[in-house]
Amino acid sequence: MHFDNRLTRMLGVEIPIVQAPMGWIARSPLASAVSNAGALGIIETSSGELDAIREEIRRMRDLTDRPFGVNIAQAFVRDPGIVEFVVEQGVRFVTTSAGDPTKYTRALKDAGLTVFHVVPTLRGALKAVDAGVDGLVVEGGEGGGFKNPREVSTLVLLPLVRSKVDVPIIAAGGICDGASMAAAFALGAEGVQMGTRMVSAAESPVHDAWKQAIVAAQETGTVFLRQERGPALRALRTERTERLERGEGNPMAELVAGQRDVYFGGQIENGVALSGQVAGRIESVEPVSDIIQRTVREFFETVEALAKSHLQGAGHD
Amino acid sequence: MHFDNRLTRMLGVEIPIVQAPMGWIARSPLASAVSNAGALGIIETSSGELDAIREEIRRMRDLTDRPFGVNIAQAFVRDPGIVEFVVEQGVRFVTTSAGDPTKYTRALKDAGLTVFHVVPTLRGALKAVDAGVDGLVVEGGEGGGFKNPREVSTLVLLPLVRSKVDVPIIAAGGICDGASMAAAFALGAEGVQMGTRMVSAAESPVHDAWKQAIVAAQETGTVFLRQERGPALRALRTERTERLERGEGNPMAELVAGQRDVYFGGQIENGVALSGQVAGRIESVEPVSDIIQRTVREFFETVEALAKSHLQGAGHD
Repeated sequence: MHFDNRLTRMLGVEIPIVQAPMGWIARSPLASAVSNAGALGIIETSSGELDAIREEIRRMRDLTDRPFGVNIAQAFVRDPGIVEFVVEQGVRFVTTSAGDPTKYTRALKDAGLTVFHVVPTLRGALKAVDAGVDGLVVEGGEGGGFKNPREVSTLVLLPLVRSKVDVPIIAAGGICDGASMAAAFALGAEGVQMGTRMVSAAESPVHDAWKQAIVAAQETGTVFLRQERGPALRALRTERTERLERGEGNPMAELVAGQRDVYFGGQIENGVALSGQVAGRIESVEPVSDIIQRTVREFFETVEALAKSHLQGAGHD
Repeated sequence: MHFDNRLTRMLGVEIPIVQAPMGWIARSPLASAVSNAGALGIIETSSGELDAIREEIRRMRDLTDRPFGVNIAQAFVRDPGIVEFVVEQGVRFVTTSAGDPTKYTRALKDAGLTVFHVVPTLRGALKAVDAGVDGLVVEGGEGGGFKNPREVSTLVLLPLVRSKVDVPIIAAGGICDGASMAAAFALGAEGVQMGTRMVSAAESPVHDAWKQAIVAAQETGTVFLRQERGPALRALRTERTERLERGEGNPMAELVAGQRDVYFGGQIENGVALSGQVAGRIESVEPVSDIIQRTVREFFETVEALAKSHLQGAGHD
């Protein structure tokens, strides 16, 4: 049993699992562990720290000989040199997000890269396909981080987009194991992206308090924070984020102000720790390779059980 | 290809699809069409009109010789005689919802009925199993109608509950076709419930304007209305419900005040038309039998495609 679809061929990976591009977190220690496990690590640019990112990409060359990608978070990286920067680094795969897909797609494609755009709606998907992207990351509202204020769940959004476009789709939002990966494939995805599951991984650089908060969280343990302007955010439920949920305070300002303390100081109660609803399904901190291997095993077990129960005379009885 | 699992055996149906118990809508014309299509029609009690419901159940006997069920919406039917009422009608299958599962489960089980409780969280699921229910309806926040204010998507909630309980699960929220049904089965369900898809069916008694509003809706076309007390509601996005979403007005009061006009007068803009996010996936009004048959066909096609792509040497190449 192995994967062989448009995504594995495009990316040159064995396993069509992509690690999400979390700001400050999606750097070489985590991304190289994902790539070395046969999946696809991604380096972030949403931190805006391009000098540090350049060094991270250089480190990836030392840490893995497998493929990896870079995310261009358009809302956070306003430097028009970003395309040149990514191309110079020899990166072959880019996801673009948080912005207009017409902005960088042509230049990236002209430089020979494979480009997937992250979309939260059908409208965004159609616009990205029109702009010439190679594929889509279709992101349901249950996921963590920056979100469309009008959130739509993966179970609804993914098959809708699948029914209207032909390009390969990576499903994001709500995915942390083989059962949810198999569900995404039933809905038309050829790959999945994991964010919160990777934030909680042993190789993730965040403070252990954040990982333990994910492990402790119930499935109702996130809040969806709308803002008057800009994207919504999904974060762990704390006294502070519940205040933000009630409209008291500015989520983005508090995210930025508390970022270092939350990410690397472990002060979860004092800030905005971006996380998806799958926090309620994660029960331990594990090495990336264990997460990937178990997900793959569960995926095939799930497909096998579905086939065995429902396809008579197909060699399964 | 056919279904044969704990749910089809418990319910005595060919097809493990259950129609949701929408107040005023889940009556004999719709429910008998669902049962006659080989799935399970459900009669509602959330309208509180028990005399009318008694007549509806009597009509079901004339309209179908197939199994059907009744929902006891505990928050809306405060008459303690409801159990006796349901038992007297000769009903064999009941879903209980919107209340404490310990309240009626014992009496219904003692009368020989099969009882499923509707749950929006793992905590609710564990409590219902402790109360002795035969199974669960696990309801994700993308669905329409009354919801837990801390909504969790089906893709996250369903596999979480599946991993912690042994009873059969009917998945609800986000399901309207064979791909979403297959995804639910990958996540551990043995049946699915459809609400919005059935509201839009040809045999649904609501005004055609509501059905057309569902057909016209985008996937972002619902709002999630929290209230200071009581459940949240998911309804079609209109100018009025967007005002309610911003906290201007009382969703429950406006639902009740406008109910007749919305449901049977077609005044969608003036009221609260409960609908799930799948409104964005429904493209036409169709007879129930077409919906059920296509869903079943797509379900098996989806499972077959998953198996063919991923199970080599299993008779699929």
